[in-house]
Amino acid sequence: MDTCKAAVFVGTGKPIEIQEFPILPIEPGGALVRMQMAAICGTDVHASHLETTPAPTIFGHENIGVLAELSPIITTDVLGQKLQVGDRVIFRDAPCGRCFQCSMGESCQYSKSYGMIRSNESPYLRGGFGQYLQLSATPWLLRVPDDLSNERALLSVIGNHTCLNGIERIGGVNSADTVVIQGSGPIGLGALNQSLIGGAANVIVIGAPESRLKISSRLGATQTISLSDFPTPEARIERVKELTQGRGADIVIEASGGLTAFQEGLEMVRFGGRYLVIGQWTDYGLLSANPALLTRKVIRVQGVFSAGPRHIIRSMQSMRSIVTAPVEELITHRYELDAVNEGFEAHEKLEAMVAVILPNGDPAK
Amino acid sequence: MDTCKAAVFVGTGKPIEIQEFPILPIEPGGALVRMQMAAICGTDVHASHLETTPAPTIFGHENIGVLAELSPIITTDVLGQKLQVGDRVIFRDAPCGRCFQCSMGESCQYSKSYGMIRSNESPYLRGGFGQYLQLSATPWLLRVPDDLSNERALLSVIGNHTCLNGIERIGGVNSADTVVIQGSGPIGLGALNQSLIGGAANVIVIGAPESRLKISSRLGATQTISLSDFPTPEARIERVKELTQGRGADIVIEASGGLTAFQEGLEMVRFGGRYLVIGQWTDYGLLSANPALLTRKVIRVQGVFSAGPRHIIRSMQSMRSIVTAPVEELITHRYELDAVNEGFEAHEKLEAMVAVILPNGDPAK
Amino acid sequence: MDTCKAAVFVGTGKPIEIQEFPILPIEPGGALVRMQMAAICGTDVHASHLETTPAPTIFGHENIGVLAELSPIITTDVLGQKLQVGDRVIFRDAPCGRCFQCSMGESCQYSKSYGMIRSNESPYLRGGFGQYLQLSATPWLLRVPDDLSNERALLSVIGNHTCLNGIERIGGVNSADTVVIQGSGPIGLGALNQSLIGGAANVIVIGAPESRLKISSRLGATQTISLSDFPTPEARIERVKELTQGRGADIVIEASGGLTAFQEGLEMVRFGGRYLVIGQWTDYGLLSANPALLTRKVIRVQGVFSAGPRHIIRSMQSMRSIVTAPVEELITHRYELDAVNEGFEAHEKLEAMVAVILPNGDPAK
Amino acid sequence: MDTCKAAVFVGTGKPIEIQEFPILPIEPGGALVRMQMAAICGTDVHASHLETTPAPTIFGHENIGVLAELSPIITTDVLGQKLQVGDRVIFRDAPCGRCFQCSMGESCQYSKSYGMIRSNESPYLRGGFGQYLQLSATPWLLRVPDDLSNERALLSVIGNHTCLNGIERIGGVNSADTVVIQGSGPIGLGALNQSLIGGAANVIVIGAPESRLKISSRLGATQTISLSDFPTPEARIERVKELTQGRGADIVIEASGGLTAFQEGLEMVRFGGRYLVIGQWTDYGLLSANPALLTRKVIRVQGVFSAGPRHIIRSMQSMRSIVTAPVEELITHRYELDAVNEGFEAHEKLEAMVAVILPNGDPAK
Repeated sequence: MDTCKAAVFVGTGKPIEIQEFPILPIEPGGALVRMQMAAICGTDVHASHLETTPAPTIFGHENIGVLAELSPIITTDVLGQKLQVGDRVIFRDAPCGRCFQCSMGESCQYSKSYGMIRSNESPYLRGGFGQYLQLSATPWLLRVPDDLSNERALLSVIGNHTCLNGIERIGGVNSADTVVIQGSGPIGLGALNQSLIGGAANVIVIGAPESRLKISSRLGATQTISLSDFPTPEARIERVKELTQGRGADIVIEASGGLTAFQEGLEMVRFGGRYLVIGQWTDYGLLSANPALLTRKVIRVQGVFSAGPRHIIRSMQSMRSIVTAPVEELITHRYELDAVNEGFEAHEKLEAMVAVILPNGDPAK
Repeated sequence: MDTCKAAVFVGTGKPIEIQEFPILPIEPGGALVRMQMAAICGTDVHASHLETTPAPTIFGHENIGVLAELSPIITTDVLGQKLQVGDRVIFRDAPCGRCFQCSMGESCQYSKSYGMIRSNESPYLRGGFGQYLQLSATPWLLRVPDDLSNERALLSVIGNHTCLNGIERIGGVNSADTVVIQGSGPIGLGALNQSLIGGAANVIVIGAPESRLKISSRLGATQTISLSDFPTPEARIERVKELTQGRGADIVIEASGGLTAFQEGLEMVRFGGRYLVIGQWTDYGLLSANPALLTRKVIRVQGVFSAGPRHIIRSMQSMRSIVTAPVEELITHRYELDAVNEGFEAHEKLEAMVAVILPNGDPAK
Repeated sequence: MDTCKAAVFVGTGKPIEIQEFPILPIEPGGALVRMQMAAICGTDVHASHLETTPAPTIFGHENIGVLAELSPIITTDVLGQKLQVGDRVIFRDAPCGRCFQCSMGESCQYSKSYGMIRSNESPYLRGGFGQYLQLSATPWLLRVPDDLSNERALLSVIGNHTCLNGIERIGGVNSADTVVIQGSGPIGLGALNQSLIGGAANVIVIGAPESRLKISSRLGATQTISLSDFPTPEARIERVKELTQGRGADIVIEASGGLTAFQEGLEMVRFGGRYLVIGQWTDYGLLSANPALLTRKVIRVQGVFSAGPRHIIRSMQSMRSIVTAPVEELITHRYELDAVNEGFEAHEKLEAMVAVILPNGDPAK
Repeated sequence: MDTCKAAVFVGTGKPIEIQEFPILPIEPGGALVRMQMAAICGTDVHASHLETTPAPTIFGHENIGVLAELSPIITTDVLGQKLQVGDRVIFRDAPCGRCFQCSMGESCQYSKSYGMIRSNESPYLRGGFGQYLQLSATPWLLRVPDDLSNERALLSVIGNHTCLNGIERIGGVNSADTVVIQGSGPIGLGALNQSLIGGAANVIVIGAPESRLKISSRLGATQTISLSDFPTPEARIERVKELTQGRGADIVIEASGGLTAFQEGLEMVRFGGRYLVIGQWTDYGLLSANPALLTRKVIRVQGVFSAGPRHIIRSMQSMRSIVTAPVEELITHRYELDAVNEGFEAHEKLEAMVAVILPNGDPAK
C-alpha cells in the first residue's frame, strides 16, 4: 500500500508534526485528491492554541487539489462539467439534504469539515495539509478552469465566498453604495473585492499595518483609514462621517474580530443602513454595544460565517473574470509541508497576508 | 418472501391494473413504508392520458404511510424527532446536495419522484398506490404528529406546500393584502388557506361549480366569483375591480390552468402588485398575453411548482395548528386499492374535490 | 375667535397644565381635527422626565379625531376614499418626498411629528392632548371606517404599525414560525397580534405582571413565560429552548426596552433566525452583548421604530377585519383632559396597559 | 417680461414648431431652469405619432439644466448639498407623499411629468425642449457634480435609472451571473452598464445593427448576438443556450419592445432564473406567450418603467465613478433647438443612438 506525508496538529504548545499515513482505497462514491495548495487560515492558528481543539488532526480547510482517483459514479462537477482523474478541483463534503438546516436553506448540520477531523481514524487523510486527502462518498466538486491559477482559485474560498454569502443575505450591494470595511486582512480584502464588483462607488478600508492598506488601495479601495493615524474608535467614526457627508456608510462590513469593532461599526452605519458582521467569530463573551443605535438608525445587522455551494461557484467565477485587481499578491508566503510551523509563525506575527502550504512541493521551484 | 398489491398504470386507454409485487429487503439506509393514504392528483389523471408517460408505473406522489422497516442508521426525522417503526411519516427522496440546482437553492435535478418511477425495475414499489413503498437510502422524513389526522397531514402536500413555496418567492403576503385566487380546486383552496393564515384581509375565490365556491366560503373566502354568474374574463376582471376600489388585487394567484387565465390574472393585479402562477403547468404552447401590462403596472410574476422541504414542514404545521377551517372536508372521495379506476373517474368528472386511495383498506370501515 | 383647551407639558417635575388656545383659521391646504382619543405613550411618560424635552408642548402623537374643517383642495384620503368634514381620521404630516431618506424609502427627515412641537408658536395646537389639532398643508389622512371603533382604530397606531414595519423589514413571518416576544406591554402585544395574523404557529410571550400575561393568552399567545417564575435571563433562555426542541425561536421580537434584553434575545434565536429589536429606543449607552452569537448562529437583526404610511393602512385594516381577538381590552384606562396627570401616573405605575385621553369628554358617559 | 423659445409639438403629422413664451416669475417654492441638454426619447418619437398625445406640448423629459432662479426656501439638494443659482441640476416634480402609491413605495400617482404637460397653460414652460423650464413648488433636485459632464449626467436618466429600478426589484444581480440583454438601444446599453457594475460575469447583448453591437462590445459586453446572423427567435434561443452550458441565463433583460421578445426571453431564462421586462411599454394588445414556461422553470418576471428618486441618485453616481466605459459615445447626435425635427428624424431612422437637443446652443461650437 502506498503512503504519504501529512502535517498533524498533535496538541497545543507542541509543534505540528509530519507523519506518514497509508493511502487507503477510496470508498464507494469517494475520491482521492492530490493536494496542490492549502491556506493557513486564521482559524487554524487560533485552533492551535485552544485546549478544546481535537487532536491529532490534519489541518487545512481551504484547499485546491487534483483528482488522483475518482469513483466511476461521479462523472461531472456541480456545473455539469465532465470530471476525470487529473482535473483540478475545489471540493467539500456534500450537504445531507435531510436535516433541519438543509431544509431551511442554511448550512448542513451533518456534513464533514475537511481539515477539522481526527487523523487517527480511517481513512486518516482528512485535511489539506497532507499530500493526499480522502473524500467521502459523493462529494461536492467544482472543477477549476484551466485558465485560473491555483492562487486565484484558492482565494475563492478565502473570505470572498463568505463575503458573497453575507452580501446576499443583506440584500446585495446597491449600485453606488458607500461601503466601510473594518479590517484589512484576508477577509477584509475579500469584502473589498466583492463590494467593488457588486457596484459600490466608494469602499473605505480601515486597518493596519500600512502595507496592508497599500494593498487595499492597489485592489481598489477608494480611501483607507490607518489605525496609526486614527488610533481611537472616536477618531475613526468621525473620519467615516467626514467621508460620507456626515451620514455614515450605506454598508459596514466587520472583518476584524476586534473587541470594540461591533460597537464601532454600529456608529458608522447610516440611518437605514446595513451592517454585515463576519470577523466576530471568536467568542470573547460579553462585549459592549449600544442597542439603541439599532432602533434609532433602523439598522439591519447580519452575522455570517463560511458559505454555501453557490457562493463558491460565484466566488470562483469572480476570481476568474470579474475581479481584475492583482489579488494573487495576497498570497505572500509559500511553504512546503516540512515548513508548516514556519508558516504558522509568519501568520501569527502578521508577516503574511495569506500563507499557503504546498503539500507536494512548489512547482515554481 | 412477502408480497403485496399495487395499482399499476400500464398505458393510456387501459384501466389501471392491480398487480402483485415482492417486498424486497430494504436497501442499506433505506426504509419500507406501509401506505395509509395517497391522493389522486390532477397530474396523475393528466399523465394517464399522455403517450409519453412511462409505463408500467405505480402512481401516487402525495402520500402518507407508516414506517414498516427502517435502516438502523436513520434515527430521527428532519426536525430531529426520534423515529421508529410504526411512526407515521411524510417522505421524499432527499435532494443530492451537489447538483447545480441544489447549489442554487432550487429543487434537486436528480432526486427521485416516488409515484413516477417504472414498476418493472427493482425494488418495484415506488408509488403510493400500493400497499408498500420502498424508500431509497437516507430519505427525507417528517414524522406526522399523533394529534394530526391522515387527512389533514395529506393536505400538507396537496397544494398548500406549493402555495407556501410560491408565497415565499413573491416575498410573502403582506398584512391586510387583498388576494384573488383563480381556481377553486385543491390548489386554489390551498392558496386560500395559506393566504388567510399569511395575513390577507380579503381573499376572493373565482371558480366553479357552486359546490366548490361554497366550500371556499366555509374555508374563509371573503368573496367568491362564480363562473356561471361572471362567464367572461371581462366580467370577472370588472368584478375584481369593483371589489378592490378600482385598483385590482395586491396579489393574484393562478390555480386554474385555464387557457386564458394568465392574461386575465394580469388584468386583475394592481399597480405594483404580484402575480403567482401555479396552475399553468400543462404546456399548451403559445397562448395570449399582453406584456405591456407587466411594465405599465410594474407587476411581479412568479411561476412555481412543487415545493422544497421547508414548505412541507411549514405546511404540515399549518394544518396542525394554524388553519382552523375544516379542511378535511376537501377529501370528498375515498377508494380502496381495487377501486382505483373509479377514483380516477370521479376526479375526471370533477365530482371529487380530492379523491384518495387507501391502499391497505379503510380503517373507518 | 374660538378657543379650546389643551394639556401642556411645561417642564420636568411640573404637573401638566390645562391651557386655553385660540383656534386659528386653517392654513391653505390644511385641516382642523376635533380630537376624540389620544393615547399616553411610554415615550410621552419618558419625555416628561427629560430635561431635553422641548416645552411648552402639547403631547399626544397616537391620535384619532374628526375632521372639523378641511381645505377644499383635499377631497380624498390616501386610499382614494371621499373625505369630508365629520369624517373620523388617522392623520400625519406627509413626507416631503425630496429628502435623502424619503428618496431611500426611509422615514422623512423633515416631516413634523404632531405631539412633539412647541405650543407657543402659531398655530399652537399641534398635539393630541387638546380639544383641537391643526394640521399643516396637505396632510396624510386615512379615513376610519364606520364599523371600526375608536379603540381599535387607535391601536392601529400603537405598536401594531411599528411591528408591521419591522416584520416587513425582516422579510415577513413565515408560515408556522415560532416567535418569542420579549415584553408584554402595548408593543409586545402588538407584536403578538401581528405575528399571529402573519402565520406564526407558536407565539411565546415573556413578561410581567401576571395580568398582562393573562391578556396575552386571551389574545392568542400559545405560551407565556412569567418573569416571576423565570426571574433570570438564563432561566428564560432555557425555557425558550425547551419550548423549541432545543433550537431557539425562528423570530425573536424585543419589545421590552430592558437593559439585558438584547443579549438575552440573541441567545433565544435559532441558527439562521431573525431578531427584531423595537423596545431598545431609550439610549442607555453601552450595554452588554456577545457579537459572536451573530456570526455563529448567522442571525439577522433589525432595529426599527415608528412606521411608514403603508404600515398604518395595513395595521388599521388588520384591526378591522383580521385580528379577531378582543384587543380593545388593552385600553384599560380612560381620562378626560383635566385628568391627564392621573393618566401619566397610571402609566408610570404600570397599572394601565394603555391609558387614553378623551380631549372632548367621554361619549360613553 | 423676458421671453424665450421652445419647441412645441402641435399635433401628429405636423412638424414641431419653435414658439416664443414669456418667462413668468417663479412660483413660491419654485425654480427656473436654463436648459442645457435634453434627450429625444423613444417615447417622444412614439408620442408624436399618437392622436391621443396632448398638444400643444413642449416635449423633453430627460433633462439637465442650470438653476437660473431659485426659491429662497430651497437651500439644498436631495443629498443635503448646498444649492444656488448657477448650479447644474437634474430635477423632477417631487412625489406627493400622500397617495396610495407613494404610501406603498411605488411611483406617485399625482406628481407632474415635465415634458408631458400642455404648453398653453401657465407657466407654459414645462418641457426640456425649451430654453427655460419652470419647476413647481419644492421640486426634487440633484446637483450634478462639477467633474461630471452633461453627457454622462444625462445618461443617468436614460435607461440606466430604469434598469437600476428593475435590478433592485428582481433582487439585484448576483455575483458572476450571466445576463442576456434583448435590445441594443439606449435602454439595452443602460442594462449592460448596470449589469456589469452589478457583478455580472457575462453579459450577452442581442441586437442590431452591427454598429450598436460594436458599441456594446466597447462598453463591455462579453458576447453579442446579431439579428442578421441569428435572424429567428429559435436561432437566438439556441445561441444563448450554447453560451450558457445549455442552462439559459441567470437573468434576461428585455429592452427591445419587440413583438415576440417576451416569449423569446422566457425561453432564454434558466430554471429558477429572473426576467426583467422594460421594453414592453408600447401596448400592442395580446401577443403570444407560453405561461407553462413560468411554472416549469420557476421563473420570476418583473415589469418596470421609469425609476424612483434613489435610482437617479445611484445612476448618476455610477456614471461619475463606477462605469469606466466611454458611455458618452452613446450620444451620437446633437441638435440646436431649431433643428429639433431633424433630431426626431435621426431617431426614427435609427441613425442616432441617443440624439440630444441643446436648447441654448452648443457650447462646443
